[in-house]
Amino acid sequence: MVRDIEKLVSEMTLEEKAGLCSGQDFWKTKAIERLGIPSIMMTDGPHGLRKQKSSSNVDNLGIFNSVPSTCFPSAVGLASTWDRDLIHEVGIALGKECQAEDVAILLGPGVNIKRSPLCGRNFEYFSEDPYLTSELASSHVEGVQSQGVGTSLKHFAANNQEHRRMTSNSIVDERTLREIYLASFENVVKKSQPWTLMCSYNKVNGVYASENKRLLTEILKEEWGHEGFVVSDWGAVNEREAGVEAGLELEMPSSGGVGDRRIVEAVKDGRLSEEALDKAVERYLTVLFKAIDNKKANASYNPEEHHLLARKVAGESVVLLKNEAGTLPLKKEGSIAVIGAFAKKPRFQGGGSSHVTPTKLDEPLEEIQKSAPQARVIFAEGYNLGSAEVDEVLISEAKTVVSNSDVAVLFVGLPDSFESEGYDRTHLSIPQNHQKLIEAIAEIQKNVVVILSNGSPIEMPWLDRVGAVLEGYLGGQAFGGGIADVLFGEVNPSGKLAETFPMELSHNPSYLNFPGEGDTVEYKEGIFVGYRYYNKKKIKPLFPFGFGLSYTSFDYTDVTVSSDKIQDTETVDVQVTVKNTGTVAGKEIVQVYVRDKGDKVIRPEKELKGFAKVELQPGEEKSVTITLDKRSFAYYDVDLKDWHVQSGEFEIIVGGSSDRISHVKTVHVESSKVIRKRAHRNTTLGELMDDPATAAIVQQIMAGMAEQGGMANAMQEEPNDMMLAMMKYVPLRALVNFSGGGFSEEMMEGLLAQINMAQQP
Amino acid sequence: MVRDIEKLVSEMTLEEKAGLCSGQDFWKTKAIERLGIPSIMMTDGPHGLRKQKSSSNVDNLGIFNSVPSTCFPSAVGLASTWDRDLIHEVGIALGKECQAEDVAILLGPGVNIKRSPLCGRNFEYFSEDPYLTSELASSHVEGVQSQGVGTSLKHFAANNQEHRRMTSNSIVDERTLREIYLASFENVVKKSQPWTLMCSYNKVNGVYASENKRLLTEILKEEWGHEGFVVSDWGAVNEREAGVEAGLELEMPSSGGVGDRRIVEAVKDGRLSEEALDKAVERYLTVLFKAIDNKKANASYNPEEHHLLARKVAGESVVLLKNEAGTLPLKKEGSIAVIGAFAKKPRFQGGGSSHVTPTKLDEPLEEIQKSAPQARVIFAEGYNLGSAEVDEVLISEAKTVVSNSDVAVLFVGLPDSFESEGYDRTHLSIPQNHQKLIEAIAEIQKNVVVILSNGSPIEMPWLDRVGAVLEGYLGGQAFGGGIADVLFGEVNPSGKLAETFPMELSHNPSYLNFPGEGDTVEYKEGIFVGYRYYNKKKIKPLFPFGFGLSYTSFDYTDVTVSSDKIQDTETVDVQVTVKNTGTVAGKEIVQVYVRDKGDKVIRPEKELKGFAKVELQPGEEKSVTITLDKRSFAYYDVDLKDWHVQSGEFEIIVGGSSDRISHVKTVHVESSKVIRKRAHRNTTLGELMDDPATAAIVQQIMAGMAEQGGMANAMQEEPNDMMLAMMKYVPLRALVNFSGGGFSEEMMEGLLAQINMAQQP
Repeated sequence: MVRDIEKLVSEMTLEEKAGLCSGQDFWKTKAIERLGIPSIMMTDGPHGLRKQKSSSNVDNLGIFNSVPSTCFPSAVGLASTWDRDLIHEVGIALGKECQAEDVAILLGPGVNIKRSPLCGRNFEYFSEDPYLTSELASSHVEGVQSQGVGTSLKHFAANNQEHRRMTSNSIVDERTLREIYLASFENVVKKSQPWTLMCSYNKVNGVYASENKRLLTEILKEEWGHEGFVVSDWGAVNEREAGVEAGLELEMPSSGGVGDRRIVEAVKDGRLSEEALDKAVERYLTVLFKAIDNKKANASYNPEEHHLLARKVAGESVVLLKNEAGTLPLKKEGSIAVIGAFAKKPRFQGGGSSHVTPTKLDEPLEEIQKSAPQARVIFAEGYNLGSAEVDEVLISEAKTVVSNSDVAVLFVGLPDSFESEGYDRTHLSIPQNHQKLIEAIAEIQKNVVVILSNGSPIEMPWLDRVGAVLEGYLGGQAFGGGIADVLFGEVNPSGKLAETFPMELSHNPSYLNFPGEGDTVEYKEGIFVGYRYYNKKKIKPLFPFGFGLSYTSFDYTDVTVSSDKIQDTETVDVQVTVKNTGTVAGKEIVQVYVRDKGDKVIRPEKELKGFAKVELQPGEEKSVTITLDKRSFAYYDVDLKDWHVQSGEFEIIVGGSSDRISHVKTVHVESSKVIRKRAHRNTTLGELMDDPATAAIVQQIMAGMAEQGGMANAMQEEPNDMMLAMMKYVPLRALVNFSGGGFSEEMMEGLLAQINMAQQP
Repeated sequence: MVRDIEKLVSEMTLEEKAGLCSGQDFWKTKAIERLGIPSIMMTDGPHGLRKQKSSSNVDNLGIFNSVPSTCFPSAVGLASTWDRDLIHEVGIALGKECQAEDVAILLGPGVNIKRSPLCGRNFEYFSEDPYLTSELASSHVEGVQSQGVGTSLKHFAANNQEHRRMTSNSIVDERTLREIYLASFENVVKKSQPWTLMCSYNKVNGVYASENKRLLTEILKEEWGHEGFVVSDWGAVNEREAGVEAGLELEMPSSGGVGDRRIVEAVKDGRLSEEALDKAVERYLTVLFKAIDNKKANASYNPEEHHLLARKVAGESVVLLKNEAGTLPLKKEGSIAVIGAFAKKPRFQGGGSSHVTPTKLDEPLEEIQKSAPQARVIFAEGYNLGSAEVDEVLISEAKTVVSNSDVAVLFVGLPDSFESEGYDRTHLSIPQNHQKLIEAIAEIQKNVVVILSNGSPIEMPWLDRVGAVLEGYLGGQAFGGGIADVLFGEVNPSGKLAETFPMELSHNPSYLNFPGEGDTVEYKEGIFVGYRYYNKKKIKPLFPFGFGLSYTSFDYTDVTVSSDKIQDTETVDVQVTVKNTGTVAGKEIVQVYVRDKGDKVIRPEKELKGFAKVELQPGEEKSVTITLDKRSFAYYDVDLKDWHVQSGEFEIIVGGSSDRISHVKTVHVESSKVIRKRAHRNTTLGELMDDPATAAIVQQIMAGMAEQGGMANAMQEEPNDMMLAMMKYVPLRALVNFSGGGFSEEMMEGLLAQINMAQQP
């Protein structure tokens, strides 16, 4: 339906316009009946719908009281699939559930970068890498929005910890912001136009995200071209009128009229222009009516179908971290000891606002028995769910059960109380009783399979003592079925880590400055986040980014590039041929990293710039093509205020993990932009000699000075390394002093004029 | 002699005053005969005098052409002694040589912190730790100055690399500057009043050190009370008049009149006040006349005595890094293969401005033979001095010599071309031919002693294959004798590392940002320099800070503290009893580190705050007392702009190395200063509840809100961890929105007034 939104806004009173800039209650927006403006509903939950059950209790977060919906694996699990299509399918399913539940906007996905493994909300985020994050989040957004339901890309921006999240101030330099923390948003906005973005609680470089004009208007709307509106995280508004001015269209939840009054007063005082308010309301209404127009009457979904999809995703998201001597897959016979309370009450989702009431819930123990009806499956609890204390009786029971079985499958990990939205972890340990259980079982049984349920990396001091480890993350309501599929080989695990598992917490790049001092958290590690850091620092992780095993094996038989020299305005195709060299079907995630061989700019050893997931039957071989463009080679140049490629050679690094490189190709990329800096009194001789346009001028000067004696002469007399190095880095102004009068200040000024002239293109 | 310097200055013309602000030539200051102002001479060389030979060649650096003087071990070697008294003795000797050579001011010592092992000038600096640096540099300064000769503490400040040193811009946050990079200067200035300081070439936070008023005037003169003058590093002046204004009294060397003219013009233009110029000249003349008044007529020194002192220091500065199964000391019998060109032509000093022409030079090979006349000492060159290329013939010769001997003593390390003032290293390797030699010899001989000559850490991939390693650093002209003393046990090695040897270069804390990008070098590792980083990050170094073995062994039998609770205005004495439990006499360096157990401020795991060197006969036991004061517990608080102790518990950590802790005591230190921050709309409930003065007020509010329903109510209904954590970090302003109207903006303002009142002391 075509509407004249501008006209609609012009018919509103100031109070009505201000009123539309905040919610009616916890989840709904305000209606204006006289103008035909309806209310819409938003709900939490990137991996499932969290729609509150009772409308009578609207000012309550109601986390444990929502309408049932399908709980898919959390973002960390989705990310481990590296599967754009599968995540798109999940998005479609979520969109359908939203339509069925009359939800106009789903509050997600979350694309914050995992700066530290401690962040309590990591399970809701995809990766430590912005490219991987944005690729997968785009699929999610497009999936949901294909159903006529909006998304809210969150939490914008530099919101990478829960500690003091409502007052913390993220101090991040511009390049790091651009290359890491904004990049995960940028590509999603440009590619997939999420209907809304959600601003975060924290300050970014001193200014609350909710009133950060640089972020919300200059970068998001003007530079990236976002067409939708920005909603505040629930309670993120500091000074409401500043938010309107900055580009925050909607405050949520209701501020009980406080925000509305502040806007009205600010407009009346002249502190806020009515035009800014009008523009905010227009943006808001544009999305609102998009939702209304896309509302499907009597929409419904099939919970059983969605459960099956959840099971498929759960299996695909599992990462096989270790598999000694074919411990896995299990045979569907003999006796299988299933140990751990999680086997009956799985930890399948994270705590906080994303907490979903599932439509049904698989019990892993039951699914294992169902998958292997011929096997004798015996269970022991192993530990108490509600405590971290070691219970020797439970361990002893578990040992008895294990001693009578062929293999022990241990369900362990992080209980709810160990990680959640709202607070950060302070260590990477699993509870004492889980750890003790693993050690006790490993002592009496060689065939131990550890299945982890956790939202973020843990330390594994017991790793050497077990046969296999499956990282299940928070696998959603069908985790039980999904993990059974993987255990018995119905599904060949193909997930790869979207984050680094460090050997020690202290090895993490943010460790020295996490979670900051008081409200201040300085991102001093800069662009060296995740594998960018471990690579460069040569610190061996427990498991590297991109790592994941399979029940089969793959060979990278050929890699070619479409050109070995391109302009940065052109693209280059990387073609990779992979072969399944094992005996079962499987999927491989081909990863393409890029490395700048130049040394003028501080850059990571390599950065992920492309990936593809390919399914292969035993013996089958397939080629995939990955296209790299300017952005694949560029860094963000803060002086240029733009992405820039430093002309030179780049390595195209292909492999199945960030640490398993199979092929390296070299491509020369020529920048279409030449950066020239004006010469000044502190420009060095070396800089001038490096530039063909000015080298001759300098050589002339030096020759002249040599005749005059002085320092230049001394250099020619004793041309050792020190002298040569010194000369290269001598600024022009020092020549004035060292020249013994042969080169005056006036001559320098003249020279500078000459040089700056010569440098004109 | 008492002079009226103010009056003297008032009699000068503007041009004369400007003239005194720069040198006459490369090494001398200007005289004004009509006013009886003489010229004085300065020379390079913290560890030996580098007085240029011929005055006819005054504008030449003349590095290889100086009057002979005693070359003591470089600062890195001096530092390894951890011996305040011995370094004082060296200072006295240097002062005597200056008097004999008519040198008024010796340009040293250098107290820059070793931020990276790559810095080409590290050999001239003491340590990665500011406390150790300043303690030892004070002894040096006091020794020299006791002879009526001035010193020039250099290079002020944040000058931690050679790369682009004349234009580089060190970006260092205030706390890091204060705790690390300025601290090494601060204590020397306050304790020992060096006559002069030398400003460095680089910029500090955007402003050239030579015109940095914050550094040269506000901090150095006003805050620290420096009474002398500041001289520019040779050629460090950018805009001379700005330097005068900033507190740079003397430009060196002569600027050929440029600087003088600029000062005169600036005063005439009114850009520079004549008072500032007068003050500069007064400060300069005060020191000048101090030099004149302290000049000793017909001074001389005994080169042989100084050589013996140099030998003593060389022996004391050696660090025994490894000694398997008593490989050392050597027996003075049998056959000893001495391998390596360095054994005949030792590398005993660094390259650059500190390069000295020694009065004599020990040949290590000869000294070894002299020390063990009964032994058969056989030599092979092993490698070419002038090249890094492997010479198989030389290696084969060496193997032949070694195969006929009981032990192989290998002289290897870094040749001159590998490290020098003026440029930085790019790796930590020794030359290929040195490394190959070690490996070849280790293959055929179990008893291999490696003697290293180098100015800064190297990697040792061959470490496991040799029996003993002696770090000789750059041992000065008597290194040959000193090392022979250690080899045969005449001197029991007692040196300990004043710097960390990393396993890999990339592990170094500055690695990600060294040597910067273009002219910008960001000190992003902050206060985590050296062992402060390796400790906190749990990255195992090759050899830790404070490490060094002995031919005997020591037990720390008792540690006591004089009080377990002090005010920060008081001191605490740490008494440590050490016993020599071996069979030969030796010296132990007792180290005292302090750790803040609180977590409000980001701090290192431990910091060196005291040390003592104690000599012990076999079986002997001695106690040393180390006094800790406020500064031992304080961090630099950038808001307070002062050193501050966070009240709480501190660990006093005692041991013989940063990684070998024998005793830990706990002391409670109570700050004499209570920091109160004004509450504001973003003060969190947790902060208010933490403060007894405001806790009650908040509880009242919360109770009131609970009655009103809303968020506070919800929290009480579902008091899980997330809710509790969230509440603690909820800012006051968010309560306004979450209160459901029960808590208005006006009520918040009233509350803030009430809280800020209650917080008044």
